[in-house]
Amino acid sequence: MADIARLAGVSTATVSRALNHSPLVNEETRARILELARSLKYSINVGAQNLRLKQNRTVSVMFPVERDTRQHLSDPFLLAMLGSLADALTEQGFDMLFSRIGSDELGAAAAPFDSGRAIGIILIGQWQRHEQINELAARQVPIVVWGAHLPNQLYCCIGGDNVRGGELATEHLLALGRRRIAFFGDLALPEPRQRYRGHCAALERHAIAVDPRLQVPVSFLPEGGVQGVLEMVRRGHAFDAVFACSDLLAMTAIDTLRTHGMRVPDDVAVTGYDDIAQAAVFHPRLTTVCQPIALAAETMVASLLSLINGGPVRSVELPTKLSIRASAGELLV
Amino acid sequence: MADIARLAGVSTATVSRALNHSPLVNEETRARILELARSLKYSINVGAQNLRLKQNRTVSVMFPVERDTRQHLSDPFLLAMLGSLADALTEQGFDMLFSRIGSDELGAAAAPFDSGRAIGIILIGQWQRHEQINELAARQVPIVVWGAHLPNQLYCCIGGDNVRGGELATEHLLALGRRRIAFFGDLALPEPRQRYRGHCAALERHAIAVDPRLQVPVSFLPEGGVQGVLEMVRRGHAFDAVFACSDLLAMTAIDTLRTHGMRVPDDVAVTGYDDIAQAAVFHPRLTTVCQPIALAAETMVASLLSLINGGPVRSVELPTKLSIRASAGELLV
Repeated sequence: MADIARLAGVSTATVSRALNHSPLVNEETRARILELARSLKYSINVGAQNLRLKQNRTVSVMFPVERDTRQHLSDPFLLAMLGSLADALTEQGFDMLFSRIGSDELGAAAAPFDSGRAIGIILIGQWQRHEQINELAARQVPIVVWGAHLPNQLYCCIGGDNVRGGELATEHLLALGRRRIAFFGDLALPEPRQRYRGHCAALERHAIAVDPRLQVPVSFLPEGGVQGVLEMVRRGHAFDAVFACSDLLAMTAIDTLRTHGMRVPDDVAVTGYDDIAQAAVFHPRLTTVCQPIALAAETMVASLLSLINGGPVRSVELPTKLSIRASAGELLV
Repeated sequence: MADIARLAGVSTATVSRALNHSPLVNEETRARILELARSLKYSINVGAQNLRLKQNRTVSVMFPVERDTRQHLSDPFLLAMLGSLADALTEQGFDMLFSRIGSDELGAAAAPFDSGRAIGIILIGQWQRHEQINELAARQVPIVVWGAHLPNQLYCCIGGDNVRGGELATEHLLALGRRRIAFFGDLALPEPRQRYRGHCAALERHAIAVDPRLQVPVSFLPEGGVQGVLEMVRRGHAFDAVFACSDLLAMTAIDTLRTHGMRVPDDVAVTGYDDIAQAAVFHPRLTTVCQPIALAAETMVASLLSLINGGPVRSVELPTKLSIRASAGELLV
């Protein structure tokens, strides 16, 4: 405020009155002060000013990263999402301001908006920070989140139908005669948890008891697939299939199964999740739950722009389908 | 200029004098005008102002895209590079402003710097636009480029040793007894051209004639590997190995060879290029020329910051090595 007063050659009281639309300040002076405040990126309402003036053509894209322990930027699904977001924003004439953020600092995710550097925020993944994201939405930060639909969600959330995805992969494995399906995924995270719920629902529909010894809580890091297989071997608990919560986990699991002399799909059927580009040329070609990445990016960008323009915005659960290839075996028709 | 005058409450002549450091303007007024000019992103020298004042913490990362015909953002090597750049910039406390740019518009690559949105530019790939990038460097735009070292290079270029990479893969295939090596890559682009030069040098060292019928000019798009194999089949020209200019091309080539009943590596040995994360879990595991992606990103960021700070900067050719796995067969010792 002192900066603005100094540059405009007026008192700080006048600046304060001008920013609060007091009638004591004449129009010319008020216009001059508001323009200065905007130019100086005066922090309190520059985000809102950007929205009104539509001058800013930059969107902030943030990837929360769980420190050292979980998914990071090497995951091909996240990288493909980043590429598709860049494509979708470029189509709309926007730049993408990209940053990583510690998932324990999600409260700071609004910083690029608050400081006026970006007109809105796209957050990829909600981790276990649902409440903090709700707080951002409650104070009118334009934010769109990729993730799972949860109860009491104040923010606009775009995500796949994870329960349905879990059902689809499990129904397919059951139809191929598999009965002892190991589940590789971290149930502390919303998306794997919903996939597991779909998995269990499918088992129950076929009157197969859910066996906790088949659930392995691995992270999304590449070594998760290795750890999952090694853990099942260590448990000495028979399994004839693996439901992996990402294609990367499926690929590293298949590589590890092969190393241990287990044939895929003959001995162990494997399904992935995401349907990244490499899934179709992996050997055996991955049977996997398809997440429509390009559509996801376009939907997030369209939702954010609608939110910024004050239009109606609702959360969207994108349709999910199974891409059937070879890694789970072939259905006999 | 009129804006600054209006906001400062002085004449445009005074603004002009202040910006030109005229002694006719007193210090207080000049400081006020310079700060306003900076705040308004007064376009002529805001880039240089940013450099001096070190206030801007944003780096622009640009991917030139050859319209519709060549590499785009689905390439896992480029995506991994993007992830590593984001990591390296975050480490240094910088944001990444990411954009795609048509490779025919490289002259506009300096726009984020000229407008003051970014403190410098990292350009991934030079395509056939060497001269335009030289022009940017000549007018002191802080720019670092990922690509091939070329004669008369005014800009700072970080890249792999592509000639050496071409030699390494070819020497390996020759040591395994392969003599008819198909080369999949577009010689109109600097990097594939240098790899081909290394490939030819290795052949000549072994007194094997370079056969142009074994050179297939495919793009970096995923279908390049498919097209390369189909073109060799169409030519009806015998081949016992494939040198692919990316891992993605190698993977799609292997998948297509398999579809056509050719075993890898028994019938056709295949080498890739890049050593992306998936290369190690593909089946057969890829033998490939390793490009050190994390080191590349760190080197580009360090070079750009040094350039910005006026320090010495030189182009760097990063060391290249062969990651020997299974796709080209195993050496008998």
